Amino acid sequence: MDPALINFKVLYVLTQLCGLTMIVLVGTWIGQHFGGLGGSSNPKLEFNWHPLFMTIGFIYLYGNSILIYRGFRTTRKKTLKLTHAGIHIAAFILTVIALKTVFDSHNLASPPIPNMYSLHSWLGLSAVIVFSLQYVAGFVAFLAPGVRENYRIALMPLHIYFGLFGFVLAIASALMGLTEKAIFAVTNPPYSSLPTAGVLANVIGVLYVVFGALVVYLATEPAYKRKPIPEDTALLNSSSVNE
Amino acid sequence: MDPALINFKVLYVLTQLCGLTMIVLVGTWIGQHFGGLGGSSNPKLEFNWHPLFMTIGFIYLYGNSILIYRGFRTTRKKTLKLTHAGIHIAAFILTVIALKTVFDSHNLASPPIPNMYSLHSWLGLSAVIVFSLQYVAGFVAFLAPGVRENYRIALMPLHIYFGLFGFVLAIASALMGLTEKAIFAVTNPPYSSLPTAGVLANVIGVLYVVFGALVVYLATEPAYKRKPIPEDTALLNSSSVNE
Repeated sequence: MDPALINFKVLYVLTQLCGLTMIVLVGTWIGQHFGGLGGSSNPKLEFNWHPLFMTIGFIYLYGNSILIYRGFRTTRKKTLKLTHAGIHIAAFILTVIALKTVFDSHNLASPPIPNMYSLHSWLGLSAVIVFSLQYVAGFVAFLAPGVRENYRIALMPLHIYFGLFGFVLAIASALMGLTEKAIFAVTNPPYSSLPTAGVLANVIGVLYVVFGALVVYLATEPAYKRKPIPEDTALLNSSSVNE
Repeated sequence: MDPALINFKVLYVLTQLCGLTMIVLVGTWIGQHFGGLGGSSNPKLEFNWHPLFMTIGFIYLYGNSILIYRGFRTTRKKTLKLTHAGIHIAAFILTVIALKTVFDSHNLASPPIPNMYSLHSWLGLSAVIVFSLQYVAGFVAFLAPGVRENYRIALMPLHIYFGLFGFVLAIASALMGLTEKAIFAVTNPPYSSLPTAGVLANVIGVLYVVFGALVVYLATEPAYKRKPIPEDTALLNSSSVNE
């Protein structure tokens, strides 16, 4: 096998291990230290869906959706596009639930906690908006109805750039979110004495960064780029615009 | 002129405006709201050098040093390399002073504030370590003594990747630092009521992100890549290894 492909596979497996560990640790963090998950009758516990679903949807699934073309290189392009769009929808649904739970946890607290004041909220919401605009633009341009090939070729670098930008911004926002939660909720003993809940927050943050760095590397290294397979080429020569 | 070059120039000027505004606003923030700069006799004021010098050194100069090859494309390669190494040294000196002032401000406070407990400190120090290792590796490989051309060609993508990784990690760390400072120091009225000092923190954070996004875009868009100039080619054909 091509040595570049072997490197890719090793790093891809590492990325998945890192991503899954990150999700398990977020679950452990909120389960062991912040009382686990709850509904709107308990705003503090309802909040806990926010880091969990953001980590699964807006980091892990978002990253995996980016990697789909390079991770499954023998699959037909059309199937990959639909999978990319599908995983992104799943990521978006989890993200919207994660947003709803944080607004609920603020509004239903007594006294209510103000919304959208922190840098975390400004940049996190910006990342969600970038993601959503990207989704609409990508869907229209590349899936249905699909624009002409020369426009698709011109749009692709922007689609890749803003896709990775939104992903990195999501991770940066998550790091600020962890910082806020650690300061506000790791208080007895305090975060500054690095109790287990504080160490866990930091380790989760480090894993976010490693996961993000791996995804961006795997998605941008030219040697790992997917080559068109015969089925794609056959379709490219047919009259269909959006194969 | 090549339309890609015109785009580059417009975005390059925007990047500089964004970077300079960001520095001015950090100065305003610490000057107007946190008492300005001070020496080790006043740990609270000594702290204020930390965000200022990190913004100038570890964000603005780091980003500009990355852009030097594309921003000054008619300059000889050797001169660009020396300038790249020189700006990086300036960035490193400011970063070390910024680290010294934050450790001082913790150790000299009464009671002392623990060091290196926060995710901000873990990731920020990681970014400084990545930067330093990159500097040493880049210096040895590309400047003096300089390794053989085929090795330099093989190392270049890694140098670019880890250079941009360190830069983005520096920005992510700065965003966490802003979050910490806003929570700890914007208290009367509180950050959650978004007083001027809180809005300023958020606007600075947005500018960090825009500056970072512009630098990464300008440094990675293939259309903006510098082409070798005649002087470089002449030198490449000579016997010198590290022109």
